[in-house]
Amino acid sequence: MPHRLLHINEERLLSDLRSLAKIGATVDGGVHRPALSEADLAGREWYRQSIRKAGLELREDGAGNISAILRSVEPAARTLLLGSHLDTVPNGGRFDGALGVLAALEVLRTLSDSRRSLPCHLEAISFSDEEGNLIPLLGSSALTGRLKKEAFSQPRVSLNELKAAMTRAGLSVESCLGARRDMSELSAYLEVHIEQGSRLQTASLDIGVVTSIVGIRSYWLEFGGEAAHAGTKAVGERRDALLGAADFALNARQLVLENYVPGVVNCGILELEPGAFNIVPARVRLSLEFRHGTVPLLDEMEAELLRLAEECASRYGLSLELVPVVGIGPAPMDAAVQNAIEGAAEALGLSHVRLMSFAGHDPQSLAPLIPTGMFFVPCRDGISHNPAEFTGDEDCVNAANVLLHSALLIAEGALG
Amino acid sequence: MPHRLLHINEERLLSDLRSLAKIGATVDGGVHRPALSEADLAGREWYRQSIRKAGLELREDGAGNISAILRSVEPAARTLLLGSHLDTVPNGGRFDGALGVLAALEVLRTLSDSRRSLPCHLEAISFSDEEGNLIPLLGSSALTGRLKKEAFSQPRVSLNELKAAMTRAGLSVESCLGARRDMSELSAYLEVHIEQGSRLQTASLDIGVVTSIVGIRSYWLEFGGEAAHAGTKAVGERRDALLGAADFALNARQLVLENYVPGVVNCGILELEPGAFNIVPARVRLSLEFRHGTVPLLDEMEAELLRLAEECASRYGLSLELVPVVGIGPAPMDAAVQNAIEGAAEALGLSHVRLMSFAGHDPQSLAPLIPTGMFFVPCRDGISHNPAEFTGDEDCVNAANVLLHSALLIAEGALG
Repeated sequence: MPHRLLHINEERLLSDLRSLAKIGATVDGGVHRPALSEADLAGREWYRQSIRKAGLELREDGAGNISAILRSVEPAARTLLLGSHLDTVPNGGRFDGALGVLAALEVLRTLSDSRRSLPCHLEAISFSDEEGNLIPLLGSSALTGRLKKEAFSQPRVSLNELKAAMTRAGLSVESCLGARRDMSELSAYLEVHIEQGSRLQTASLDIGVVTSIVGIRSYWLEFGGEAAHAGTKAVGERRDALLGAADFALNARQLVLENYVPGVVNCGILELEPGAFNIVPARVRLSLEFRHGTVPLLDEMEAELLRLAEECASRYGLSLELVPVVGIGPAPMDAAVQNAIEGAAEALGLSHVRLMSFAGHDPQSLAPLIPTGMFFVPCRDGISHNPAEFTGDEDCVNAANVLLHSALLIAEGALG
Repeated sequence: MPHRLLHINEERLLSDLRSLAKIGATVDGGVHRPALSEADLAGREWYRQSIRKAGLELREDGAGNISAILRSVEPAARTLLLGSHLDTVPNGGRFDGALGVLAALEVLRTLSDSRRSLPCHLEAISFSDEEGNLIPLLGSSALTGRLKKEAFSQPRVSLNELKAAMTRAGLSVESCLGARRDMSELSAYLEVHIEQGSRLQTASLDIGVVTSIVGIRSYWLEFGGEAAHAGTKAVGERRDALLGAADFALNARQLVLENYVPGVVNCGILELEPGAFNIVPARVRLSLEFRHGTVPLLDEMEAELLRLAEECASRYGLSLELVPVVGIGPAPMDAAVQNAIEGAAEALGLSHVRLMSFAGHDPQSLAPLIPTGMFFVPCRDGISHNPAEFTGDEDCVNAANVLLHSALLIAEGALG
């Protein structure tokens, strides 16, 4: 490391985490702060106050993104963006998103206190609606210009609820679309997040350097058989749609376990018709979702899974319709940023491993446009999106320290 | 056979079948005549007129059962009951039930025409609501006294719909309960019905002599796992409730195919929670129904199936709750009546086989109380409860002729 080992202010960071957790706190120790809810607006106001109190510059855009900025002495410098999100899923936890924003803020405060001169501006951003209460990755996709006007006509809530929420937050469709920034002014994006899985805990490791945010592909599989009297139709002569779907669910799991780990597959919805004790199922609609880190692996999984579905349908004399559902491409993280994160962990004496992120995150919006990196800290038992979500103080401090030193390595030329 | 071989009037029977099929006819060639609907009331009125036209005595009871009666010369004689039902499932077929009533009526007309003197009264009854549009086996269970007042507070339709239908038909709870008859006045009950399966067609046989109407047992199987993020929770570490249910559905089929044919099993309802593409299923409620001909076989199937459910749950780390649903005991048919049906088929030169009925029928109500028998004629491709239901003219004629000669054998002493 080219400089003496700076550390963030542990007490200040942990105190911030405790204060923020009170906003939208639920009785069971969790947080309910869905994007643009009253609690989320209170959380954002708390973030503005914290930025002002730290003597940092406040920046807000038309998509509801809020940033702290620490200026370089070079006015024409580019900006290194650090961040995450302050919104939560309904009845979520205290660390998902919040840790990333507060660690970023703490990095800026630490560097501001140190009066170190930086070759780039630093910005600690809180992105709107990462969790997709209204529109998934609203803030980060608005910033990158990937947000389309059509997204506002297909929100996850009713159009009236979306409109009310945006009005409450002082946003409009136009203001959101106008939040697009000139990406050439941004040098890189870096985010720390809790793992939301248990790989780090299981391996007793401190830091997970994300190599890629996995792609997600989804299908509806519609197995068609024949309704029949469950008494008079001999078992061996039925065309029972449930059997094809059941066979698929079991064998899809086996296929992925044997050939595609750490890739994952899930059949999370099963709808059956006509649905009576005494009628053989005529039709089953099964949801299929699978995730992996690269396009070739996703292509291979897709081919194998769809072939399996055909096999299962034909084994029970069923028809099969495959209906693709919109997917998300994998987002590989920048190699130099990964190296910077590893270098920072090494310098701090923290153990680390490279892994994929199987959940979606804001870096997906930025990775196609600027060098982007992400790393995880452990999350107890992998429990997240849950009031029981927990990351220990030491891991929270590690998160901010690794973010600090990764940022310094990147700022000082790790990107070449 | 102790008498010259009498035959029913083929044209009269087939013409009746055609006339009745017009009442409640649907555009696709089926019949929609659910119990106590306007169409059913029209069908019943048609039956009354046919009885009067044949010069037979008309009998009606408070449960909506309608009978034609041909009196013996012996006033104190007992009554041999023949029959079936005129109601249909919604959008059902032309033969289910109708053939049995019209064959019975034709038997009485043939015997009346022949002026043969009989040692017992003959009655051709149409039972109310065999299909259970309102209350399953309403008419036959009222006649035997098995109908309970509670059945009227748990109809298959709303209480208001039940009340409206009963009022339309001039029935009341009291009149239905009052339809109970002194069973010692009945010597036997005999019914012909279409098979609603394809065993006779497959084996090219004319007559299926029913040995037993199978018992039905049902359960709800509730598999409990753990909801989890379908991205971050490793496939091998999940407790996915769908997998237990899928494994059970496949292996229950296999178990029955290997050990319990012609017994049957069906999983006709599957409800899954929480139900999202990206959430591992936490809970699945699966319906289980199985049927076989005797109590020991039902007991054995039950033990094996429930053991299998426990195995499937434990294989995937799931909890399991078993909730029994009300079942129906098997109804063995009377041995002497089975012999009489076989004797009749033999005398008429018709091929026959003994088999179980895997569907429920009115004889279930009567079998525990009086000697009861039932036989089937073929049903094309086993299709029933469907507008495409079809039984050929020759089989319809065979139905009535076998009913005639079975009745004669029974009337003349086959029961000893």
